[in-house]
Amino acid sequence: MKINGNFQNMEKNYLFAEVAARSAAYAKAHPEKKLLRMGIGDVSGPLPAAVVKAMKDACDEMATKEDFRGYGPYEGYDFLREAISGYYASLGVTVDVSEIYVNDGAKSDAGNIGDLFDRDNLCLIPDPVYPVYVDSNLMAGRPVEYLRACPENGFLPLPQMDTKADLIYICSPNNPTGAVYDREGLKAWVDFANRRGALILFDAAYEAFISDPALPRSIYEIDGARTCAVEMCTLSKLAGFTGVRCGYTVFPKELERGGEQLGALWLRRQSTKFNGVSYPVQRGAAAAFSKEGLAQAMAGIAYYKENAAIMAETIGSFTRYWGGANSPYIWLECPGKRKSWEYFDYLLNEKQIVATPGAGFGPGGEGFLRLTAFGDREDVLEAMDRIAR
Amino acid sequence: MKINGNFQNMEKNYLFAEVAARSAAYAKAHPEKKLLRMGIGDVSGPLPAAVVKAMKDACDEMATKEDFRGYGPYEGYDFLREAISGYYASLGVTVDVSEIYVNDGAKSDAGNIGDLFDRDNLCLIPDPVYPVYVDSNLMAGRPVEYLRACPENGFLPLPQMDTKADLIYICSPNNPTGAVYDREGLKAWVDFANRRGALILFDAAYEAFISDPALPRSIYEIDGARTCAVEMCTLSKLAGFTGVRCGYTVFPKELERGGEQLGALWLRRQSTKFNGVSYPVQRGAAAAFSKEGLAQAMAGIAYYKENAAIMAETIGSFTRYWGGANSPYIWLECPGKRKSWEYFDYLLNEKQIVATPGAGFGPGGEGFLRLTAFGDREDVLEAMDRIAR
Repeated sequence: MKINGNFQNMEKNYLFAEVAARSAAYAKAHPEKKLLRMGIGDVSGPLPAAVVKAMKDACDEMATKEDFRGYGPYEGYDFLREAISGYYASLGVTVDVSEIYVNDGAKSDAGNIGDLFDRDNLCLIPDPVYPVYVDSNLMAGRPVEYLRACPENGFLPLPQMDTKADLIYICSPNNPTGAVYDREGLKAWVDFANRRGALILFDAAYEAFISDPALPRSIYEIDGARTCAVEMCTLSKLAGFTGVRCGYTVFPKELERGGEQLGALWLRRQSTKFNGVSYPVQRGAAAAFSKEGLAQAMAGIAYYKENAAIMAETIGSFTRYWGGANSPYIWLECPGKRKSWEYFDYLLNEKQIVATPGAGFGPGGEGFLRLTAFGDREDVLEAMDRIAR
Repeated sequence: MKINGNFQNMEKNYLFAEVAARSAAYAKAHPEKKLLRMGIGDVSGPLPAAVVKAMKDACDEMATKEDFRGYGPYEGYDFLREAISGYYASLGVTVDVSEIYVNDGAKSDAGNIGDLFDRDNLCLIPDPVYPVYVDSNLMAGRPVEYLRACPENGFLPLPQMDTKADLIYICSPNNPTGAVYDREGLKAWVDFANRRGALILFDAAYEAFISDPALPRSIYEIDGARTCAVEMCTLSKLAGFTGVRCGYTVFPKELERGGEQLGALWLRRQSTKFNGVSYPVQRGAAAAFSKEGLAQAMAGIAYYKENAAIMAETIGSFTRYWGGANSPYIWLECPGKRKSWEYFDYLLNEKQIVATPGAGFGPGGEGFLRLTAFGDREDVLEAMDRIAR
């Protein structure tokens, strides 16, 4: 029996597992110090009340023989797919119910979608970026090419004359840099992909943070995207679902490769390796898209955006940064030309602030650091006070 | 961009999707007829009250800033892993908390575990069997060899002198045949695997249906299993979690291949492609293993076992069958030497009973049919009455 040797090409630990381990070690050694956690992109707020009510009602249904539900549809219940389709409509984007596939979070789909693709496809992945795109492709043995994001291109690289790619990962608003493509930028990628027959895997996890109407919240706002792009999204950041687990992926009907409709292929994959999302969770997710639920969710987003603005002001006083508007992330240049993990350790040991080292997002992240705006206001204010001192 | 060509080696539709499509077409054409569903192995009973209460309490926690929980541990919360470890202890089996990895259902892990293995491993898979083992390996491009299960070996094949295998799938109690290995049978497989360095992937999804103390409920009851076997289990059948989604996989600490601890490799896979199970679901699962929850769950199991006994009596009066005791499945020989899909269509069209054609579980299932005992008592009695007529 041979194990998958590709695991040796990956970092030993998943980035956030390493951050958690270092901060846990510090906390254990210094139980008297208060750690301020601005590392992992996890929300701190409670669930919207409408979501909690819907989930509890669904639990009650499951307690009776009449209303009990067993296995659900692999692609998700229509009541939720309709709610998601309605959310898209509110953004001015048409996505049919049949094009929506519900999942237990965007990370699962971002990782598992590779099952649909041949091992020889060349993956073009921004650097720095959310580690799942690189790790899941290394695990599958696919060649990965980095697309350099840097201050010179505003962390928003565009296709060049000599760019080669079969699978293109785009995350906008970007994790970790907070940079957001405008319509012209995404249009350049869509045209490139359609010309080459490449596929864009568009991660829209942070779309709800966009308030600038000049910036697209879905790749389907761009002409031509329906023949070249899959869009992945989640309720994790929109409605605080990091511990509840629900997201969705869109495969437009027109999206075909090798004579196969990718959505049909995905359904075949999901029906083989997945059994759908928990029924109470799907009810909660549908409630998040209701008028009441969405108002509660957007109040949470506004709170985090205000955090980001506060952070941006302090950080901008001593170094360069990106993001902080239309994004929950602030991406800053480590002062004094320090390396990422060095500055991470400095903030942990001297300021008791947990950040995420930029180098963990790829070689292009070296010398940068990510801070998240998902904390309590009080903690954000204290952290900025500690940093400013 | 090239799609994964291995999809062409799989059946176009997942078996149960095809069964659902045919019965839906019949129901649409004959809205006045009452269909009795004994096809998909889905439970019909409500959730145990203790589970519902725990889930609702967890939802309430998520509604407050103080008790809110975001991302959980990739391997599951310790409160649930401890409950599972305690359940093993009640079976007389020692499984440490650190060896337990919580998931959203055994199907996900049975499908995704292939990520750990090289593509060249030879998979030995019983025929007939639950389609996920074959489909997920075909999707990955792994060679599959069938292990013939038939009336002559009681649907419990044993390793032979010339048996070759790297990955061995065993499901006991078996889906679909209901056959259960005794200790000697499993010992033969464990010894074989240890001798060859092969790995057993043991699916214990139906262990709670075993009431005969002579039959093992976990492969870890067998000496030597800890160095050659992964065990996958689920709450779907134990506590009616088909729509709630929670299961677990055990990687013993001693289980190593190629110098790597498989549990560590699995955690690396999960942390890359999975973000844990919904918190309220994990609370519900832990409650299912409480004294009160387990008593409620076992009352449900007893109800289904009584169904199986009723079915076995009728079916035994006109054909040979296997299972029906220590299992929720009855595996019957189609009367009159009919083919599986032919008898399936006969039962659907003439008796309005939805079964599962044996041929859907592999070529060795041709000429057989699976019935499940998960229905309402009233429906079971009516179905047996219709069949007997």
